[in-house]
Amino acid sequence: MAHVSIIGTGNMGQAIAGVARKGGHTVELLGGSDQSAHVSGDIVVLAVPYPALPKVLAERGDSLAGKIVVDITNPVNFETFDSLTVPANSSATAELAAALPDSRVLKAFNTTFAGTLAAGTVGANTTTVLIAGEDADAKSTLAEVITSGGLKAIDAGSLSRARELEAFGFLQISLAAKEKVAWTGGFSVAA
Amino acid sequence: MAHVSIIGTGNMGQAIAGVARKGGHTVELLGGSDQSAHVSGDIVVLAVPYPALPKVLAERGDSLAGKIVVDITNPVNFETFDSLTVPANSSATAELAAALPDSRVLKAFNTTFAGTLAAGTVGANTTTVLIAGEDADAKSTLAEVITSGGLKAIDAGSLSRARELEAFGFLQISLAAKEKVAWTGGFSVAA
Repeated sequence: MAHVSIIGTGNMGQAIAGVARKGGHTVELLGGSDQSAHVSGDIVVLAVPYPALPKVLAERGDSLAGKIVVDITNPVNFETFDSLTVPANSSATAELAAALPDSRVLKAFNTTFAGTLAAGTVGANTTTVLIAGEDADAKSTLAEVITSGGLKAIDAGSLSRARELEAFGFLQISLAAKEKVAWTGGFSVAA
Repeated sequence: MAHVSIIGTGNMGQAIAGVARKGGHTVELLGGSDQSAHVSGDIVVLAVPYPALPKVLAERGDSLAGKIVVDITNPVNFETFDSLTVPANSSATAELAAALPDSRVLKAFNTTFAGTLAAGTVGANTTTVLIAGEDADAKSTLAEVITSGGLKAIDAGSLSRARELEAFGFLQISLAAKEKVAWTGGFSVAA
């Protein structure tokens, strides 16, 4: 069993907490007013919007050393809705990994809407979480939490694949915002 | 009814021809040895690999003026399998549109494997073709061909979204190459 800390109590943080609890793991859900609280999880999910990452790093960066840190952000420019706010050849996760050299940083959960994490399904398919990162053991540990919670997990490759996962997340969000796909649906992988 | 020319007789060209014929449209399928043949379609699908686009442009560029030109390529670096070969802030489709200023260039079919175009389904879901481009009428004309052939079509936005569609296609190909998703499956959109 893993002990999972989730920083951020929004719909994504709560949905990810639900998956971990369903899998029998212990969950610590930390909100913005809990800055002083010790982060106790072996896995720490940063379930905050991309613009909030610097604040999280400033407040808790030191306490993330040695841990598996999961970035779920989609750094979409929500003013223009026409681009990502990270450089085209980088990713939010790559930036985070550079800022946390003593953590094992993964990308995950940015391609699954909160409703599909809570429901466990996207239409007829089981919700599938795509994971990218350098550390195979860290990816395997996170995948175990996800699959024990009734979802599927796919190792999508190295940290550089975070770029494509963020493009995927941006595309999916842009389609949902234009009501081309449902916020309760989106892309899925067949069984 | 549309008249569709397809340049390229590989599995993608044949699958797209099948969709168009199923929809009652006329199809002209042109292979590499048909360079001198007139391109008669109102819609011209360039069903060739990305590295073959310059040759197609050199041989047929002039005859594409005034037409809807559909780019289906995934410009993946197949040596490293770790990146696209176009600049990170561009796309194969943006390059093609720049080379064909008198054509209405669209991105489509790069996120759907040939098998799912032929089957009409991805698992339990109807195969959905994502289309990007500047010209709304052109996108609507292509969408009509696709939907009349029994598939679904989604307008994914402007030409700049081709970048995300190529990231999506690259991710999906990389997952299929590692047997994480099936070549007969991949990502789909719930009904």
